[in-house]
Amino acid sequence: MTNFNITILGCGSAMPTTLHNPPSQLVDMNDKLFLIDCGEGTQLQMRRCKTRMSKLHSLFISHLHGDHVFGLPGLLSTLSLLGRTGDLNIYAHKEIDFLLNPILKHFVRNIDFKINLIPINPNGKQLIFENKSIKIYSFPLKHRIATSGFLFEEIKTQRHIIREMIDFYQVPIRQIQAIKYGGDFVTSDGTVIENALLTRPGISPRRYAYCSDTAFSPEIVPHIEGVDLLFHEATFAESEAARAKETYHSTARQAAEIAKLANVKKLIIGHFSSRYNELDKLLDEAKSVFPNTMLAKEGGVFNV
Amino acid sequence: MTNFNITILGCGSAMPTTLHNPPSQLVDMNDKLFLIDCGEGTQLQMRRCKTRMSKLHSLFISHLHGDHVFGLPGLLSTLSLLGRTGDLNIYAHKEIDFLLNPILKHFVRNIDFKINLIPINPNGKQLIFENKSIKIYSFPLKHRIATSGFLFEEIKTQRHIIREMIDFYQVPIRQIQAIKYGGDFVTSDGTVIENALLTRPGISPRRYAYCSDTAFSPEIVPHIEGVDLLFHEATFAESEAARAKETYHSTARQAAEIAKLANVKKLIIGHFSSRYNELDKLLDEAKSVFPNTMLAKEGGVFNV
Repeated sequence: MTNFNITILGCGSAMPTTLHNPPSQLVDMNDKLFLIDCGEGTQLQMRRCKTRMSKLHSLFISHLHGDHVFGLPGLLSTLSLLGRTGDLNIYAHKEIDFLLNPILKHFVRNIDFKINLIPINPNGKQLIFENKSIKIYSFPLKHRIATSGFLFEEIKTQRHIIREMIDFYQVPIRQIQAIKYGGDFVTSDGTVIENALLTRPGISPRRYAYCSDTAFSPEIVPHIEGVDLLFHEATFAESEAARAKETYHSTARQAAEIAKLANVKKLIIGHFSSRYNELDKLLDEAKSVFPNTMLAKEGGVFNV
Repeated sequence: MTNFNITILGCGSAMPTTLHNPPSQLVDMNDKLFLIDCGEGTQLQMRRCKTRMSKLHSLFISHLHGDHVFGLPGLLSTLSLLGRTGDLNIYAHKEIDFLLNPILKHFVRNIDFKINLIPINPNGKQLIFENKSIKIYSFPLKHRIATSGFLFEEIKTQRHIIREMIDFYQVPIRQIQAIKYGGDFVTSDGTVIENALLTRPGISPRRYAYCSDTAFSPEIVPHIEGVDLLFHEATFAESEAARAKETYHSTARQAAEIAKLANVKKLIIGHFSSRYNELDKLLDEAKSVFPNTMLAKEGGVFNV
């Protein structure tokens, strides 16, 4: 089975502390690295986590609050110093121009790679990246400004052929590809050999969803239904529910409620307010609703 | 004697590593904090060093390369979240507008303090700040873009009166202030009592100079002559002297030569290239020219 895991680079919120860095995480899908959000210090966190910078495929910015983007100038500068030449796609709301244009014009000049800013539709679900094994979608969250979540999914893999059966029925090589895609085999005397006799199911595609920043919003549920792993922000404990509502953030309990409603397999909570030195309370409150909950932590790696 | 010390927040160069943060340091003069340069992660380094953010008086930016300014957006955002209301002066070359204007317009809005951008003259020595006990000057360095060093100096303090002698000669209270400033005393019978009999010297004013980034440049010497403490960049070892020249940086040995030419008391070297994991070589090379050399290190505090 190929790699599919998440590394938390920062799981704090607006104000970084000595406990938590601003939001950022890496999604590793078969050694392609996708960076979600890029708070101040992200490049340094990548170094601490021994990230192979050359594997960085593209960037995904959920929204344009400073704590999610202030690490971009330094990261782009370092990629340039490291000699990157391959294009870098940045998927973000179009207003990211206001930050990147002056940076690229005045501070990170003469770079040898092309940066493609690919605007996200803030209003609906959108397929933003696709190759032969991965699909990435954005979908709207509910925050003070346009904000999007991201869904990373493997494409359903081909079925695995059963070598012994292929030999037994003397299936010609030219027909094997069709059988991997689910086709039956017809022998020379017209007998239909069903695909299920010739193949085993491929690996079932895994899915990861990222939801930060957002108020409690059941409208998210259809976009993340049944994912293997959900990251959902949990800025506050339940005692700060009013503050969560006012600032369009979630409590840990609300994150767990979304996980339960969406019937996901595992939940990571993060984006913790700087007011919490201990997170046990948030974890307990989430687990009371959705037992399979884990706390994000800097440097933590979670398999999807 | 009042505080006058330097805290190194970052002594790396363009590319931060797990060993060194980008350039930034705090000058503490009698509990007023002056921040010089503000690389990415400066606010986090300030937290690690338990900096009292409320004591931050003003900011000094030597030049507009990213490694010296990319921490500004996050720091301004955090000062706002912490509820700062007092004006913040930022002394920098005028092109800092290209970074700060879009940040303040789109990302750090509704702040409750006023930011005053005070342009530095890149060409000559300039008194940029003065109060009753401190003077701060900028002076030109020699780098690829307009770059300035900074000189922090205490103002010469008044002489201390010798109480017993004041009593003996029955000096009227109204004349004491003049005597503190060096005046003699004339008794009622016309005898001149020399100031040296009535007072002891005040504390001799201390001076700290910051020179980064810069090529080896003896033109700096008159500006830093005799300072108590000099920070001078030492990006490279002597084996990279050609690279230093090409990039308008200094070797450790060149930093020491400047310290010697300027007859300073102590030298700190910093702004280390990310290529060095060990700094012994740089320290040895500097000490061979100027023995009283110290290596900067993150979190290090140096008395002036």
